[in-house]
Amino acid sequence: MDRRSFLTKAALGGATAAAASTLAAPMYAQGNRTLTLVTTWGRGLAGVHDAAQRAADTITAMTDGQLTVDLKAAGELVGAFEVFDAVTAGQADMYHGADYYFVGQHPGYAFFTSVPMGMTAQELANWYYHGGGMELHDELGQIFGLKSFLGGNTGAQAGGWFRNEIKGPEDFNGLKFRMPGLGGKALGKLGASVQNLPGGEVYQALASGAIDGTEWIGPWADEKAGFQEITKFYYTAGFHEPGAGLSLAMNRGVYDSLTPAQQKIYEIAAGEAHQWNLSQFLANNSAALSRLQAAGVKTLKFPETVWDAFAKAAQETHDENLGDELYKKIYDSYMASMNSSAAWLKLSDGDYTDQRTRTQKM
Amino acid sequence: MDRRSFLTKAALGGATAAAASTLAAPMYAQGNRTLTLVTTWGRGLAGVHDAAQRAADTITAMTDGQLTVDLKAAGELVGAFEVFDAVTAGQADMYHGADYYFVGQHPGYAFFTSVPMGMTAQELANWYYHGGGMELHDELGQIFGLKSFLGGNTGAQAGGWFRNEIKGPEDFNGLKFRMPGLGGKALGKLGASVQNLPGGEVYQALASGAIDGTEWIGPWADEKAGFQEITKFYYTAGFHEPGAGLSLAMNRGVYDSLTPAQQKIYEIAAGEAHQWNLSQFLANNSAALSRLQAAGVKTLKFPETVWDAFAKAAQETHDENLGDELYKKIYDSYMASMNSSAAWLKLSDGDYTDQRTRTQKM
Repeated sequence: MDRRSFLTKAALGGATAAAASTLAAPMYAQGNRTLTLVTTWGRGLAGVHDAAQRAADTITAMTDGQLTVDLKAAGELVGAFEVFDAVTAGQADMYHGADYYFVGQHPGYAFFTSVPMGMTAQELANWYYHGGGMELHDELGQIFGLKSFLGGNTGAQAGGWFRNEIKGPEDFNGLKFRMPGLGGKALGKLGASVQNLPGGEVYQALASGAIDGTEWIGPWADEKAGFQEITKFYYTAGFHEPGAGLSLAMNRGVYDSLTPAQQKIYEIAAGEAHQWNLSQFLANNSAALSRLQAAGVKTLKFPETVWDAFAKAAQETHDENLGDELYKKIYDSYMASMNSSAAWLKLSDGDYTDQRTRTQKM
Repeated sequence: MDRRSFLTKAALGGATAAAASTLAAPMYAQGNRTLTLVTTWGRGLAGVHDAAQRAADTITAMTDGQLTVDLKAAGELVGAFEVFDAVTAGQADMYHGADYYFVGQHPGYAFFTSVPMGMTAQELANWYYHGGGMELHDELGQIFGLKSFLGGNTGAQAGGWFRNEIKGPEDFNGLKFRMPGLGGKALGKLGASVQNLPGGEVYQALASGAIDGTEWIGPWADEKAGFQEITKFYYTAGFHEPGAGLSLAMNRGVYDSLTPAQQKIYEIAAGEAHQWNLSQFLANNSAALSRLQAAGVKTLKFPETVWDAFAKAAQETHDENLGDELYKKIYDSYMASMNSSAAWLKLSDGDYTDQRTRTQKM
């Protein structure tokens, strides 16, 4: 990527946000106000729209309407990928979305959704809330005039939908595949023609043949999106987003104008939405997978040669960004935390569930 | 257990709470008020006290002091195991504790902390927030005049501290061991002399020889408790509490007197504390385990014969309670949700982390 492009945008974004904050100040009178929340999700998109709505509703309820959060889904005020600029510029007050859509603004944003071969959802929470992740998210936000918190999580995303079985890494060569973020950049190294599309546009692209295959989220959200109507090979585990965080971001000038109690409500509502949403996906995936299988979908695992290629490509993608000081700072913090979290989880949850599976014949 | 004893207590608790609510009504004037939160934790006990303090602080901050939550640790107002009765009776407004301490009030409370061979922390969240668990917790709360939410989680608890290595299930015969809840009842079936002690009293019991061994939480909390000063064999995975939820409970009369915004703040603060606390434990365990090992602690895994005995005893413990209608209702809901959650987690997080471990040589 062109490093100067995001640095220029960064400076611009910050200046714009500061200006918006100053200009908008007279509107921030005491009393009730409405905050506009734009999202990267089509209205009603299973799970991801729900997380945005959850945060909006809890903020509204907890402030007794002092802050009424008005959700505008993708396309209702601005397009899915325009939400970042809309909030930095003060055109909207808040956005809910996957921050890896904004790796063009800064590649470090990828870590706050998911990076290939990176953290699971629980590992992300460990890092975010107790390992410095939140503070690094804020360091990015200060560049762009945003105050962000995690506000949703899809859990480990499925490997995705294919028209044909994947037997080796060479099968990705020339494949037109939808995959955003650094996962998509990694997949490009296997020769895939990678496309980034908002969730609301994926079905049509797949149906029309514009793409050969896609990842979206997992069985529950994917079933609602209807990909099983077009493709029949479904890979359950994927390398690209092993625990995708969703972000709630607020224009920093707007945030600064809130009372301390309102600021705390914003923070805690985001945190609660993260947990609520993660458990929503995970509570619904198994039953959806059974329905998909009953409808003729064949579930598969990628062979080890493919995982080897994924892992190599993932590291190369990081290596290309490590020249950026802030990216490296986030990467180092993230990797240290991931290794620490993973070591204990293997000895506790891992050993426990192995024994439970064995003794209960689950 | 004597089934009539908890049913009688239930009726009594409900009546007492209702009376307290009526009597106390004049105190619930508009404006600022202080809510007393009693806990089952000694002041400063790592992680568990922190969860209670987190919820107290966020409620206070989000209400801008309309509700100031005043935390009284175990022994400061009432003893650790007296908090349940104190809140049902209206002597305190809220408690934070592990609900399996209250299986004498109703054995169904065990599910809202942890049951042996039961759910991991994530599975518990899936069930609680999206599988009917919260509603069942509330059904119990209606009997006793409580409004409860999960408000913390320790993650999978370690198998615990032993003076000697455990080579087979027979080594538990006659062992004086601290383990609360249904896990303790199950361990009793292996011949252990099981004791239930509040966290703040375990170190002294172990040091004095009153108990031979103990489980507490995991490396971080256990290190702070200092058990490594007395015993040197540490089992990392345990069967008894694979993801122990902590509860925040409020006297139902007090809850009913809150405004809808305050009620929502209470609910969301509890939910956020659950996630914040779980990730706190999991972010700290690995480093603590390394320090324990450096200090001469030997970490071990129970042999399969022991796990087989654990699993058999766990099921027998459930079987003894299934004659109670509400217990069975909770059990059926819990088990269905656990099996569903576990199936998907194995195919996604499980397969992913296996491949990550293999390719990254973690």
